[in-house]
Amino acid sequence: MNQKHAIKNGRLILEENATVPVTQREVQSNFSVYEALRVIDRHVVHLDDHIARLNSSASQIGLNLPPVPWQEWIDRLIRRDRLSDATMRILVYGGLSATVFITWESLLTYPDNFYEKGVDVTTYHGERFLPTCKTSNLLLSYLALNDAHSKGAFEALLVDRQNQVLEGTRSNFYMIRDNTLYSAPDELILSGVTRISVLRAAKELGLTVSFTPVRLDELWSSGTMFLSSTSMAAMPISAVDGRTVPCDIPLVLKIRDLVRLWEAE
Amino acid sequence: MNQKHAIKNGRLILEENATVPVTQREVQSNFSVYEALRVIDRHVVHLDDHIARLNSSASQIGLNLPPVPWQEWIDRLIRRDRLSDATMRILVYGGLSATVFITWESLLTYPDNFYEKGVDVTTYHGERFLPTCKTSNLLLSYLALNDAHSKGAFEALLVDRQNQVLEGTRSNFYMIRDNTLYSAPDELILSGVTRISVLRAAKELGLTVSFTPVRLDELWSSGTMFLSSTSMAAMPISAVDGRTVPCDIPLVLKIRDLVRLWEAE
Repeated sequence: MNQKHAIKNGRLILEENATVPVTQREVQSNFSVYEALRVIDRHVVHLDDHIARLNSSASQIGLNLPPVPWQEWIDRLIRRDRLSDATMRILVYGGLSATVFITWESLLTYPDNFYEKGVDVTTYHGERFLPTCKTSNLLLSYLALNDAHSKGAFEALLVDRQNQVLEGTRSNFYMIRDNTLYSAPDELILSGVTRISVLRAAKELGLTVSFTPVRLDELWSSGTMFLSSTSMAAMPISAVDGRTVPCDIPLVLKIRDLVRLWEAE
Repeated sequence: MNQKHAIKNGRLILEENATVPVTQREVQSNFSVYEALRVIDRHVVHLDDHIARLNSSASQIGLNLPPVPWQEWIDRLIRRDRLSDATMRILVYGGLSATVFITWESLLTYPDNFYEKGVDVTTYHGERFLPTCKTSNLLLSYLALNDAHSKGAFEALLVDRQNQVLEGTRSNFYMIRDNTLYSAPDELILSGVTRISVLRAAKELGLTVSFTPVRLDELWSSGTMFLSSTSMAAMPISAVDGRTVPCDIPLVLKIRDLVRLWEAE
């Protein structure tokens, strides 16, 4: 296989040189923000939304991000490594001058039967620091996801001190009940780029949207639950903490199909 | 100046090569633990205590740390760079196999007048994730300290949701009042290696020790407050959020002197 490349501050480098010094204070303190992007047919999906969120994350923690010609830098990497479909990652470390990396890996996809049968999730008590901000302060998410994987589950749902189920470690979380889609309000979660499309799809399908968090004890009630993310689109949930839950899978897949359809717009 | 070196997994490398790949999941999620050590006259102070805490931190987050001949690796670096006094940092990234770095910088010291006059601190609302664990999940501490610096202060005190003043961003926090030294209980804070000596010194000086957190509204009462850390030993506090507070500085310096005296043991 040919060697992979990456972008560092606009320049093409070998991916193996996409490194940061462990002696730098911003690295030691993970003073950084990031985005995960979906490249389909050489085209980055919803780039403007991702960059808007990156800027918002940076601004919330006082990370000074200079203007970057994102499309140009990304295209440079796409051309160099002849990418068609890929999952791309923008990572910005702060400091006196910010360091911007763009790296990629194979497009993250999930087996068809995940969508057809739904996935298992677990619950994990913990609150993200600066929930509206996509920073590298990810240890809680890392530990919660490892816990889920160790139990054979696909994702962990993060539950706060008020027993509100807010989001997944790398996804947004929803419940549909009585023709209403429930999702935690923007100020309590990392509002995903895909969530914008999910909410639009829900309205398109005649659902009412309520920005009310689902409570822990409601997880095993009669609602249809699902996750969303850039790589998942909409992913049905069929079990929570090892207990099967009902799920209107065709409804979730309708949402998924609309989300994917709008990616091509 | 000669080039600095570092240790990576036991091997001497140039410090500039002490880097981590931004494509590694453990780096992206700061799945890592660390210690800051004081090297005085080619000798690491309280190495066993630091390693015990490093192991405890690693264990708490499930980071698998193989046995390491710490003294040998540290001595290798001390000899190579002819170090006499230095501040040394152990940093361990987790993963399938852990990556261990040892780096150093000039000994972190503070001007005499910080000790003679006391330092200004600020208060900052925020709770550390896994408070008993010294991980790289440091964004809260980074932002709190930046906030303190922007106000001309030396350190920020972290205040929890119950308005308990638990610790500094890189220090432990104490108040002495009515012949009693108050310090937050071990389970709510990162219990510093220097704190062991501070508690011992307090007893030596005839103080009672109470593991009770100071409350936010008590900060401007008549107690003597100070910080402790590996580099500070014991540092008197003379102002909080811009308001001068009383401080029995000679008493704090007695504690500092005992802490430093015991380092040579």
